[in-house]
Amino acid sequence: MAAHVQDVFMLFGDSITQEGWEPGHNAFGQRLTHVYARKLDVLNRGFSGYNTDWGIPVFEQCIAKTSDPSAPKIRVLAIWFGANDACILPSPQHVPLARFVANLKQMVGMVKSPASPRYSPTTRIILISPPPVDTFVRRAELQARDPPIALDRGFEVTQGYAEAVRDVAKEEDVAFVDVWTAVWEATGKDERSLSKFLSDGLHLNEQGYQLVYQELIKTIATKYPDVHYDNLGPTFPPWAEIDWENPSNSLYTVRKAD
Amino acid sequence: MAAHVQDVFMLFGDSITQEGWEPGHNAFGQRLTHVYARKLDVLNRGFSGYNTDWGIPVFEQCIAKTSDPSAPKIRVLAIWFGANDACILPSPQHVPLARFVANLKQMVGMVKSPASPRYSPTTRIILISPPPVDTFVRRAELQARDPPIALDRGFEVTQGYAEAVRDVAKEEDVAFVDVWTAVWEATGKDERSLSKFLSDGLHLNEQGYQLVYQELIKTIATKYPDVHYDNLGPTFPPWAEIDWENPSNSLYTVRKAD
Repeated sequence: MAAHVQDVFMLFGDSITQEGWEPGHNAFGQRLTHVYARKLDVLNRGFSGYNTDWGIPVFEQCIAKTSDPSAPKIRVLAIWFGANDACILPSPQHVPLARFVANLKQMVGMVKSPASPRYSPTTRIILISPPPVDTFVRRAELQARDPPIALDRGFEVTQGYAEAVRDVAKEEDVAFVDVWTAVWEATGKDERSLSKFLSDGLHLNEQGYQLVYQELIKTIATKYPDVHYDNLGPTFPPWAEIDWENPSNSLYTVRKAD
Repeated sequence: MAAHVQDVFMLFGDSITQEGWEPGHNAFGQRLTHVYARKLDVLNRGFSGYNTDWGIPVFEQCIAKTSDPSAPKIRVLAIWFGANDACILPSPQHVPLARFVANLKQMVGMVKSPASPRYSPTTRIILISPPPVDTFVRRAELQARDPPIALDRGFEVTQGYAEAVRDVAKEEDVAFVDVWTAVWEATGKDERSLSKFLSDGLHLNEQGYQLVYQELIKTIATKYPDVHYDNLGPTFPPWAEIDWENPSNSLYTVRKAD
C-alpha cells in the first residue's frame, strides 16, 4: 500500500491534460512531475473526450471528502476544460455555454465553498482556458476520415468558451491561465499559424505545451507563490543533509511539503 | 483531498529514478505515466544521491502498513539502487556489497514476507540493476570540479553490484530488469561507447532511458502480464462508452484497475 508521504498537484481535464506526459512533447504534466519531484505528487486526471457534464461525476470521485483524514491534501488543483464542451451540435460532446459556466462553477465550489463536503480552503485552484482551434487543419482531418465527418468545432465558438473560463475565474477569485490568448498571440493572431502550436488542429504539440508550462508557472509564481516548487521543501532531505553517522536522525521524520 | 481512485505503480530508487521525467529525455517515468494514464498512478519515489542504507527508512515510510485500509494498493513496485551504493571509499555513499544485498532483501521482504506489517502479496516487485559507469567521462567530470575530486566509482565495482541485484531477484523470486547488461551489450561491450547512453558517465540520457523502458515493459509483459498496461482497464470509461443520455449510469462507479 502506498503511504501518503506527499501532498498532491492534481491536473483535472480532458485529453489535453491526459496527454501532458506524451513522449516527445516535453508536455506540462511531465515537466511539473520533474520540478515538483520529492515535493508534490502530480496526478494525471485527464480524461480524453470528456466535457464538464461528464467531468463532474468523475471530479466528485477524485476529490475526497474533508471528513476523510487519510487522503492526501491537494495543494494545487488545475481544472482545464472547454475543448470538448465547445463542440458544435449534433456532437454528443457539446455542452451549452451557460451549462459549461455552471459546471465550472460547480467544480470550483465543491472545493471552495465552506458548505461543501469537499471544502478545502488551502487548495490553490487554477482554471485554464482551451487553446484556439485551427479549423483548417481540423476540417481536413475530419474530412479524411472514413466516413468523412463535418467540422465539429468553430474558432469563435471555442474562443467564447475560453472567455467564459476567464470570467468564471474572475468571479470565483481563483487563478486563471489563459492558454487561448497565449497561443493566439504567439501566432500573431493568424489562424494559419496555429499549426506551430497544435498537432492536429485541436491538441497541443511541444511548442504549445511549452507555452502552457510557462504561463502556468508564471501564474503560480505570482498568484500562489507558496506552492511554487522553489518555495516547497523536499519531503525527505537532500542526501548531503543526511546525518551519515546516524541516518535515522534525519530520515525518520516525514516532512510533509508545506 | 485527493481520493484514492487508482492504484499505484511506484518507482523507488536514487537519482536515476528521480530523473525519470527529465525534460528532453523521454525517460521511463514519463513514459510509464503516459501508458498507464487512467489506469495506475505512477509515483516518483527517486531520491538523488541515496544508497540503500538511507533508502530503507524512507522505504518504510513510503509503504503503508497492510492494516491501513485507506492507502492505495501498490500494483507494481520497481526498486532500483546500486549506482550510489557502489561508490568507492571514502565516499559517504558507499555501502559494502554484503550490506547492499541485505538491504535489498530487506526491502523486498518488507512487501513479500507474510510476517511483515507491510505484507502485500499482490504487489509485483521488480528489481533493476544500475547502468555501467563510464569511468573516462566520470573521472574527467570530477577532475574538472573545484576542488577536483578523485574518481568515486569503478567499472567492475558497479558491475559487481549489478550482478548482486540479479542474484537477489533470483533468490527472492521477483522480476529483474538488467539495465547493466542491456546498456553494456548495446555499446558492443566498449566502455568508450557508454557515452551514447550516459549523460555524464553515471546518469542515463535519452538513449539510455529508451533501453530501460523497453526492458522494463518486456519484463512486465513476460513476468507480470496482469499489470501490463494493455491488460488493465481504465478506471473511468472511455468517452464513447459513456451513456450520453444518462451519464450517471456509467460514470458513478469507480472501476478500480484490477
